[in-house]
Amino acid sequence: MVNLSDRTMSPLTADDLSIGDWIEPGPWTVGADEIIEFAQRWDPLPIHVDPAAAAQGPFTSLVASGIHTLAIYQRLVAIEYTSRLDVVAGKGIDRMRLPRPVRPGARLVVRNEITAIDNRPDPQDRSEVQTHGVMTDQHGHVVLDIVSVMIVRRRSSTR
Amino acid sequence: MVNLSDRTMSPLTADDLSIGDWIEPGPWTVGADEIIEFAQRWDPLPIHVDPAAAAQGPFTSLVASGIHTLAIYQRLVAIEYTSRLDVVAGKGIDRMRLPRPVRPGARLVVRNEITAIDNRPDPQDRSEVQTHGVMTDQHGHVVLDIVSVMIVRRRSSTR
Repeated sequence: MVNLSDRTMSPLTADDLSIGDWIEPGPWTVGADEIIEFAQRWDPLPIHVDPAAAAQGPFTSLVASGIHTLAIYQRLVAIEYTSRLDVVAGKGIDRMRLPRPVRPGARLVVRNEITAIDNRPDPQDRSEVQTHGVMTDQHGHVVLDIVSVMIVRRRSSTR
Repeated sequence: MVNLSDRTMSPLTADDLSIGDWIEPGPWTVGADEIIEFAQRWDPLPIHVDPAAAAQGPFTSLVASGIHTLAIYQRLVAIEYTSRLDVVAGKGIDRMRLPRPVRPGARLVVRNEITAIDNRPDPQDRSEVQTHGVMTDQHGHVVLDIVSVMIVRRRSSTR
């Protein structure tokens, strides 16, 4: 189990990964402007774009769209390591929960760990790699808990 | 089972929803500029931001980030009906798959249907509402298949 951020070779293939390998990217600090700008484009609900309406809502303040929360996670993970990984494609999400909202001023950090690698023989020399990610705010509250799957090339791949 | 787009009352509560109720929002046409702009901010991998590198990649063209694909879905559903729904929060995603990539020029449409409503007694008068969404491109290829859960107020709710 290694910190993948310490592995400077690029690209990383499925052969370079082990269950338990991890990264801990961040922090990312989210302002109200970013919450509103993202949601105006992609999730224009009052709770994300209208501070006065949100003050009367269940969280008594603006909160980030769940898709925005996921996008912040994706950016932190992409810059830390998937940009160095020989990824074919994202396969999808096995489960995602948003236990607490992301509020303006939140300072977010991620821990992402490899939980499974499917190394069965594959005619295209690709492996499915499952990861578990948790993003927490400055109070230690979990704002995102996600299990996702990527398709990654093996070193022997002919591409 | 009704088309929720035909229900003009606002807000809709959990009591106004039934299993099988649906919406079919869209279309949304995605350009290469939008794919690059989204990914530069949230998922800066070569396959999403660098047309020359992507031409050599597994899809032989730029493809949208999976988070961008999900954001397009969220926008179409939000404008069509979650903006009229008395939502407390998104709970999360039970399963999401990206069977085919979204390429520049894709014309996307959504079908979203209610698959479960948890109406057990709840001290806060809230229901969990599960939906199944499918987004397809102009060739009829499924680019997103997602089961997600929202927490929605009941009419009797004291908020």
